Amino acid sequence: MNKPVVVRKIERPAPQLCAALEGYGVATVHEAQGRRGTLAAYMRPIYPGAAIAGPAVTVSLPPGDNLMIHVSIEVCQPGDILVVVPTSPCTDGYLGELLATSLRARGVKGVILEAGCRDVRALSEMKFPVWSRAISAQGTVKATLGSVNVPVVCAGAAIAPGDVVVADDDGVVVVRREECEAVVGASRQRVSKEDATRERLARGELGLDIYGLRQKIAALGLEYQ
Amino acid sequence: MNKPVVVRKIERPAPQLCAALEGYGVATVHEAQGRRGTLAAYMRPIYPGAAIAGPAVTVSLPPGDNLMIHVSIEVCQPGDILVVVPTSPCTDGYLGELLATSLRARGVKGVILEAGCRDVRALSEMKFPVWSRAISAQGTVKATLGSVNVPVVCAGAAIAPGDVVVADDDGVVVVRREECEAVVGASRQRVSKEDATRERLARGELGLDIYGLRQKIAALGLEYQ
Amino acid sequence: MNKPVVVRKIERPAPQLCAALEGYGVATVHEAQGRRGTLAAYMRPIYPGAAIAGPAVTVSLPPGDNLMIHVSIEVCQPGDILVVVPTSPCTDGYLGELLATSLRARGVKGVILEAGCRDVRALSEMKFPVWSRAISAQGTVKATLGSVNVPVVCAGAAIAPGDVVVADDDGVVVVRREECEAVVGASRQRVSKEDATRERLARGELGLDIYGLRQKIAALGLEYQ
Amino acid sequence: MNKPVVVRKIERPAPQLCAALEGYGVATVHEAQGRRGTLAAYMRPIYPGAAIAGPAVTVSLPPGDNLMIHVSIEVCQPGDILVVVPTSPCTDGYLGELLATSLRARGVKGVILEAGCRDVRALSEMKFPVWSRAISAQGTVKATLGSVNVPVVCAGAAIAPGDVVVADDDGVVVVRREECEAVVGASRQRVSKEDATRERLARGELGLDIYGLRQKIAALGLEYQ
Amino acid sequence: MNKPVVVRKIERPAPQLCAALEGYGVATVHEAQGRRGTLAAYMRPIYPGAAIAGPAVTVSLPPGDNLMIHVSIEVCQPGDILVVVPTSPCTDGYLGELLATSLRARGVKGVILEAGCRDVRALSEMKFPVWSRAISAQGTVKATLGSVNVPVVCAGAAIAPGDVVVADDDGVVVVRREECEAVVGASRQRVSKEDATRERLARGELGLDIYGLRQKIAALGLEYQ
Amino acid sequence: MNKPVVVRKIERPAPQLCAALEGYGVATVHEAQGRRGTLAAYMRPIYPGAAIAGPAVTVSLPPGDNLMIHVSIEVCQPGDILVVVPTSPCTDGYLGELLATSLRARGVKGVILEAGCRDVRALSEMKFPVWSRAISAQGTVKATLGSVNVPVVCAGAAIAPGDVVVADDDGVVVVRREECEAVVGASRQRVSKEDATRERLARGELGLDIYGLRQKIAALGLEYQ
Repeated sequence: MNKPVVVRKIERPAPQLCAALEGYGVATVHEAQGRRGTLAAYMRPIYPGAAIAGPAVTVSLPPGDNLMIHVSIEVCQPGDILVVVPTSPCTDGYLGELLATSLRARGVKGVILEAGCRDVRALSEMKFPVWSRAISAQGTVKATLGSVNVPVVCAGAAIAPGDVVVADDDGVVVVRREECEAVVGASRQRVSKEDATRERLARGELGLDIYGLRQKIAALGLEYQ
Repeated sequence: MNKPVVVRKIERPAPQLCAALEGYGVATVHEAQGRRGTLAAYMRPIYPGAAIAGPAVTVSLPPGDNLMIHVSIEVCQPGDILVVVPTSPCTDGYLGELLATSLRARGVKGVILEAGCRDVRALSEMKFPVWSRAISAQGTVKATLGSVNVPVVCAGAAIAPGDVVVADDDGVVVVRREECEAVVGASRQRVSKEDATRERLARGELGLDIYGLRQKIAALGLEYQ
Repeated sequence: MNKPVVVRKIERPAPQLCAALEGYGVATVHEAQGRRGTLAAYMRPIYPGAAIAGPAVTVSLPPGDNLMIHVSIEVCQPGDILVVVPTSPCTDGYLGELLATSLRARGVKGVILEAGCRDVRALSEMKFPVWSRAISAQGTVKATLGSVNVPVVCAGAAIAPGDVVVADDDGVVVVRREECEAVVGASRQRVSKEDATRERLARGELGLDIYGLRQKIAALGLEYQ
Repeated sequence: MNKPVVVRKIERPAPQLCAALEGYGVATVHEAQGRRGTLAAYMRPIYPGAAIAGPAVTVSLPPGDNLMIHVSIEVCQPGDILVVVPTSPCTDGYLGELLATSLRARGVKGVILEAGCRDVRALSEMKFPVWSRAISAQGTVKATLGSVNVPVVCAGAAIAPGDVVVADDDGVVVVRREECEAVVGASRQRVSKEDATRERLARGELGLDIYGLRQKIAALGLEYQ
Repeated sequence: MNKPVVVRKIERPAPQLCAALEGYGVATVHEAQGRRGTLAAYMRPIYPGAAIAGPAVTVSLPPGDNLMIHVSIEVCQPGDILVVVPTSPCTDGYLGELLATSLRARGVKGVILEAGCRDVRALSEMKFPVWSRAISAQGTVKATLGSVNVPVVCAGAAIAPGDVVVADDDGVVVVRREECEAVVGASRQRVSKEDATRERLARGELGLDIYGLRQKIAALGLEYQ
Repeated sequence: MNKPVVVRKIERPAPQLCAALEGYGVATVHEAQGRRGTLAAYMRPIYPGAAIAGPAVTVSLPPGDNLMIHVSIEVCQPGDILVVVPTSPCTDGYLGELLATSLRARGVKGVILEAGCRDVRALSEMKFPVWSRAISAQGTVKATLGSVNVPVVCAGAAIAPGDVVVADDDGVVVVRREECEAVVGASRQRVSKEDATRERLARGELGLDIYGLRQKIAALGLEYQ
């Protein structure tokens, strides 16, 4: 039971769906799919301005041990995002410039790492984005197995291999692979609605009126003085 | 008891007092008013370099529910700063680009938000500053009332409507409305004293001598080896 | 027992060793000395891009009281790094622009501060780097003694006066004074080995092959599907 | 501005109101006054089973310095509860068996301490209750002034001298002095209503029916499968 | 997408499997299923000594809103354990004596609550066990829908309706419904092996010898001085 | 550099000194040695009422790996206290009933564990005390070496092998081996002085008078209203 395993082949959504989700960004996608899927707020980009989306290759590994990241790279494909989760809370620096170089050589777009990241200056200069819970130089060993491409829980969100991870300055959100198309559609609608709303708000109209909230607050009994 | 209420009219200090406090900045104002009024250190600007001061319009609202931010905008005036406090600890993303657009249209200078902020890239590009305890895309509902312009406790500091909030890269400090004039005066004195001290320190004089600390440490019995 | 004391003279390593360690940076030095010496990940630079190394002048002082920082400056020499540790957890703003001006006048390169830092915008403009656990304007008193140049524990790492502190965007690592030469040597070896590895990884070779991990994972029984 | 001060005389509510609030307990009082006034959940009793209520004598003091607790005891009266708040976050052990002995001699019922408590075994045996954010033996100095009987913010709640503090295994809640009578009345109503509800629930009736929630969830569109 | 839903019927494992898991306890079950399934260590029992296991009825609900707990009780069966998870981090007191009374009337054995619990003294006296991340009197509203018996992530662990939750003084672990039988078998084996080992250790034999670790540490190069 | 090593022989202080320190307890010993040596407040006993002191056998080991605890038991002697410190922050359950059985068989009095502890109910019934930062069932591997009886930093305090660790309900304090005799003497003096003070306080005298604080607060300018 629970033997370490590497699943080589996973289903991935169509690249154009990932590209669309990348364009909409974390907040829009989160809202569009019914306010679900955000990872915990402690997952932060190591430098500002990065924005990516792609299918998750998941890695479950022990605290303080990055052996399985090396194993995982072989099953990555261009456009993938590596999602790395220790089996217990850990802030060690699992990944730095060398692993990033290797991942980039395989076409991986970035890493979601529920642990620590190091060489952050080099990664920033390479423009290889990582979202992590810590920045830490603390090194790891390569002694114990884990699994690649099994379902994981990362920063409070369940992620299956091939689910799409969207990440930007607002953090990270996950979209179920089979819902990508629907979420892209819902995101498109949301954006066009928001464009119209933004314009009205910029002219000084109030959300109270645009969203029809005045009746609601009256019904709830809000008192003005 | 504790009925939700919106207080439309609050007293505000003279705009030139706010402008002066904005110029002095958080650390100086904090010291000048007797080392009081800082908010907890977890309140951080979403981008570096912003520095504002203005009268607080306060919002007390439930966790995960931003209905009352919409209500509050109507009672804001140009130069105000919105201070938003959930009734229990929450990191949800209460505010993003749309609300910032609406607040800017009313002339609000920025937001102090003891919760999460989203669309931080867009807000950075708009130069609409927010100090928050988290960055999070997690959305909120609009279901339950709260109050506007009642006294609140934000990040450990008591803030009344019309008190002046000063915020910059060092965090946030609050100045009682009725003490603004005195604090501006004390800040002015502090700055001119610090200017003189800075020059002496830059030339290599020691604080031990400038502040007359040698007698003190001798009296306390400090031993040199 | 435990009388406050200032030790004026400490042994320092040769400046060229500090310069070499500064060049290698935190992650390399940490690995080169056998994966030891990192400070806790909550110690972060107040602005990105700074990278320094130098002998530690240590300060042990009470929570909320920076008297001993003033005392310590007198015993600092050019190239030193001040390491400031409260005797109990504290986030107060122990140090700002004035103390930084004084430290710079003495040639001190930066500060490792297990507490709060303020005036961070001014310090950023001065390019005076500080690694701290918090940014806070909260002021301190000057009432109670502590010690200078005694062994301390800073952010989980034991630091003796004259040990070399290396700090950059990855955090902070300490090197025992008497091990500096060996660590410089080991760092040099590590860097040249990493340069070769990086090139191979960039060409698409896998760490699995470069590090000879395939036998290991087979021996451990990793199953591929 | 902000001179340290000791206010000797404060208004206290009638003892029978405190006794009534003590009987109702934290959760009931919190709900009865409109879901307000709880202190942060990190304030925990040092031993289970204590339950007190009484007028607050407030102490604002520096981190790591308990001089003002000594000052405050002189102005306490039988039945009071001491509320002790450092001006910045601190976990030091401000209070132990000796201070508890002194407070008990003056009739003080217990302490709310936003810091650390020590000698917890002795206090448990004395049955002198303390709610604190930490248990810590770390000692404090007596070097710097603070204030007694000024308004404070304790663990996120504003507390004025003479407000009633209610504390039990659920934590701590504060009741404004001038609202005590109303809150006692509302608590009485709540308890008698809850007694009836409890009986119905114990017989297997559902809150869905007792509170009339079925229409609400239907109106909100809840779907059953 | 993501419409709130209540799933009335779920599959549950055989009661004798739950009883067996309850007997083995959290640590044994966790090890027996391959060192998986623990919830985060911040989930603690509100009183010591409770130990339960049973099928999970899951509740996903908004921060600060316990409406869906009321909805969930109707679908609970005797022996179930309620697993309650807010959609964002929250420490509010979602559940107290009244809800516990209602749950007990339906035969529910206890609650796993990734939020706050209140009335802990009454619950302790009732012997109704709750594992929660906080103890808090802070009340909640009943305004917004969520879902019952959908897959959730609770304190870092994925839990599906009908999975078995095991909870005792060591915390909480989840067992997939379809793996219960295998885990019971593996637990039985582990316990009998541990019984033998315990006896040998109690007589002074070393784990180094019992587990055959001497060769391993020699092979790894451990040096004795 | 930094090769894993086990130091078999360490110097220990005389047993009667340990016994004396055990009698005085954490708070007294901490104060007697000049307010030094406390471990961080997050180190808590797994059950109340335990109080021990003894020489430290130190273990430095990787996160999630308890191999070296097994190694360390062989070098323990009756009366020792095991001090276990991961090389990076970890809350895994390094130690449970089996290891406690083994340690007890060797006469070890208890464990200071900067990680997680499990089987806490069994340990409580065995009366085998552990002070830990977490309670967690999460298991560990036995794959990677560490060191035994090297200097460590545990919960913020430097501990050398043979230093005396004192632990009770107030937490943990360390006493340098070579200072034990002096600290016992200072503790004896402190206790007899406190006995006298306690009696006076119990009769209603104030610390203000007993400690001569009235002059001090007058000199500092405290104002009474």
